[in-house]
Amino acid sequence: MKISMYQASAPRFANALRNLSAILDKAQAHAEAKKIDPAVLGGLRLIADMLPLARQVQIACDTAKGAVARLAGVDIPQHPDTEQTIPELKARIAKTLDFVASLPAAKIDGSEEREVVLKLRGQDVKYNGLQYLLGHAWPNFYFHVTTAYDILRANGVEIGKRDFIGTP
Amino acid sequence: MKISMYQASAPRFANALRNLSAILDKAQAHAEAKKIDPAVLGGLRLIADMLPLARQVQIACDTAKGAVARLAGVDIPQHPDTEQTIPELKARIAKTLDFVASLPAAKIDGSEEREVVLKLRGQDVKYNGLQYLLGHAWPNFYFHVTTAYDILRANGVEIGKRDFIGTP
Repeated sequence: MKISMYQASAPRFANALRNLSAILDKAQAHAEAKKIDPAVLGGLRLIADMLPLARQVQIACDTAKGAVARLAGVDIPQHPDTEQTIPELKARIAKTLDFVASLPAAKIDGSEEREVVLKLRGQDVKYNGLQYLLGHAWPNFYFHVTTAYDILRANGVEIGKRDFIGTP
Repeated sequence: MKISMYQASAPRFANALRNLSAILDKAQAHAEAKKIDPAVLGGLRLIADMLPLARQVQIACDTAKGAVARLAGVDIPQHPDTEQTIPELKARIAKTLDFVASLPAAKIDGSEEREVVLKLRGQDVKYNGLQYLLGHAWPNFYFHVTTAYDILRANGVEIGKRDFIGTP
């Protein structure tokens, strides 16, 4: 049977983003219980020169929507990076989930050899769809989802691997 | 053409592990330049109740070797968790890479429907090969590779996303 490009992309990004949204719920509950100003969470960082939580969530969303759009050969919707609070970041994830769900499997399937061009540090870098999905989009996506988790975990939010994996 | 189970597993785990090994080289160089006791690095954590760097690397290795072994239907080699220094952790990665490379594509291909049973919190949980690889092994693997990166990055090692992604 093999794995289709759709199976390896849209539903998997969606699953991880839903888990991230539930992790953000726990972060919000933690902030409320500890009387932390809700505006603080989005700015939390692991170290001063690393991107804060809000940007980690935004880039995870961008990676997911960029991947499915590029594989489907449709324009990537622009979502301005204005979110700061947890409810705003959850809305960003919801908007991303809506876009991911809007692409029918047939648009993404068969994109293994589709040319994908990324602008990286000012240079055009070409991949085929398979290499792009497995070697670029996946590690990049999980990098930002995990770092969002790590920022919250390092700041005392009670989350565990089970929240990250969810229901495979 | 679709994606084969081999394409989506062994070479991808190997690529990310090689990138992690190169990140550990930078960590070692950083420790030497800053005169940090080399025994310190393996014990670094993001927060007291989260696993340290050495365990993150060991679990990333375990996830990779467990995934390819389960999909191939062969015994998982046992690698005792004795590593603490960066050279020891790099050797653990090298041993994992050797095992991943030892499995021919034909053993892993066709494992989409193979039953995989994981012992999770004392319970047997059943997956098919496809669900296990995409929904469990991948997120778990990247979780630990990214957290290893985040621990080093949060401790001042000069690494960037380019080191994490490497050559897709």
